[in-house]
Amino acid sequence: MNASGTWVLTLDLVGTFAFAVNGALTAVRLARLDIVGVITLGMITALGGGILRDILLGTLPPTTFSDWRYLLVAALGGLLAFSLSGQLGRLSTPITILDAAGLSLFAVSGAATTLSLGLGVGQAVILGGITGVGGGTVRDVLIGRVPSVLRSELYAIPALVGAAVLVGAQRAGMGSPLGALLGAGCCFAVRMLGVGLSLNAPRPPQT
Amino acid sequence: MNASGTWVLTLDLVGTFAFAVNGALTAVRLARLDIVGVITLGMITALGGGILRDILLGTLPPTTFSDWRYLLVAALGGLLAFSLSGQLGRLSTPITILDAAGLSLFAVSGAATTLSLGLGVGQAVILGGITGVGGGTVRDVLIGRVPSVLRSELYAIPALVGAAVLVGAQRAGMGSPLGALLGAGCCFAVRMLGVGLSLNAPRPPQT
Amino acid sequence: MNASGTWVLTLDLVGTFAFAVNGALTAVRLARLDIVGVITLGMITALGGGILRDILLGTLPPTTFSDWRYLLVAALGGLLAFSLSGQLGRLSTPITILDAAGLSLFAVSGAATTLSLGLGVGQAVILGGITGVGGGTVRDVLIGRVPSVLRSELYAIPALVGAAVLVGAQRAGMGSPLGALLGAGCCFAVRMLGVGLSLNAPRPPQT
Repeated sequence: MNASGTWVLTLDLVGTFAFAVNGALTAVRLARLDIVGVITLGMITALGGGILRDILLGTLPPTTFSDWRYLLVAALGGLLAFSLSGQLGRLSTPITILDAAGLSLFAVSGAATTLSLGLGVGQAVILGGITGVGGGTVRDVLIGRVPSVLRSELYAIPALVGAAVLVGAQRAGMGSPLGALLGAGCCFAVRMLGVGLSLNAPRPPQT
Repeated sequence: MNASGTWVLTLDLVGTFAFAVNGALTAVRLARLDIVGVITLGMITALGGGILRDILLGTLPPTTFSDWRYLLVAALGGLLAFSLSGQLGRLSTPITILDAAGLSLFAVSGAATTLSLGLGVGQAVILGGITGVGGGTVRDVLIGRVPSVLRSELYAIPALVGAAVLVGAQRAGMGSPLGALLGAGCCFAVRMLGVGLSLNAPRPPQT
Repeated sequence: MNASGTWVLTLDLVGTFAFAVNGALTAVRLARLDIVGVITLGMITALGGGILRDILLGTLPPTTFSDWRYLLVAALGGLLAFSLSGQLGRLSTPITILDAAGLSLFAVSGAATTLSLGLGVGQAVILGGITGVGGGTVRDVLIGRVPSVLRSELYAIPALVGAAVLVGAQRAGMGSPLGALLGAGCCFAVRMLGVGLSLNAPRPPQT
């Protein structure tokens, strides 16, 4: 693995850790679970999006499952959230920021992986979105909630925007790291703007 | 692609559109969702059954995901339902008919695909059923309902009947388009009969 | 298939039958379902864990789906539970014992399959757990409950223990049938101990 690969892996593991902590904290807050449940839901939040992406791409076993570093980082994030759920619950701002960073990294890595396997532009944008929001969606279903991504806040849209920017940048001939940075930056900016302004996506017209 | 292939594709896309409109309308009616949620659930209803079938068959990426026409038609159906949910809600009869047509087409195409890959008769009937009802099942889980296919109305049974008729016709040496027509016709007839007479499948004996 | 293969297959089918009966009875008790729903949920409980495992391993179509004997045994278990739900509901002790046996067999077979495909120790333990608890988890999600494995009782932990014992035994050079027996025995013992003493896994500290 070269220097660029190490860099991407590091970012990916940071995103995985942030998602695991955040996913496990959400699980603790919303459902009465035991230690197995909390760590499992942390790991599912962190790894679920990448696993769904790899199933749809047919690259099985999924990367985030066959590489033990992802499993370990996700399990540690879940364990940390289980042990310190009281204290971490108060750190909502840093956790929201880390979560937005994870969303951005996963969205662009999902889109880039899809393009590299030769699928089309639409598929890359959709799989960028699924990689970003899939883990949290599976977690919400398991604790019996309608996934928040379907109901409220700008969460899927930043991921789709970030994936689309990466796809556009690559189609425009921009180098891979630069396009990824641009896509992740757009996703992060839209997400944090949404959080700051409490924006929501449009709802169906009431008649 | 020859003339017969075009004909099958056209029917498949009609079924996809009907399922996307119907799935998105159900989502609007039963859960408070934003535009991302409504279109996503419409697409999942339309494409989910075929994706589950292709995962179980190991033909990845799934056809309905890698072919952009399915994605486009499903997204348009979801968008239409989002925009016109008030008006379309009143068109319940045409939508029920379109949905039964989609169910019939998906059941026979699921069973035929399974047979063509060399799996057995039982697998073909089951995968015909899963192709027909899988998308709606995933949608219902995501909006927090027990899937209606498990609870009420004749919905899975017509799909299983249609798939079984196609399998029987092929085993009896009947040509592929004719067997598919017969299977889809049986599924459609049983489904519309169930709707007309408000039939339900048997429930467990109460003791 | 040699004598040892027949032996493993027999145990696997016994586990499948126990899971189908137990899964269908749970479905009858907790949700108002028709015959399609009950048999479907029995089959999903029995086959779901192995299907999830095979999807994650990329061995598609899944063994428990392509081999008709698993489908038949699972369907018969669901049909039996549908027909005799009143009477079987009273046989809770034998059903709990059979279910613990199924859990033990699935946990060790999931872990052994993972090792035989060359994945790591951590993956084998996790997939042993998923094979054991995956089917019941999907069933619970479909009937709108937070999966009991995440909330209460020692259910996932025995499966993980059994899988870990098998992995340790194989790494220590112990022959395959002996290690499987030891792993399954540990899983069964921990599970029945948990049932007998009403043990639960630890919960997050309340603050």
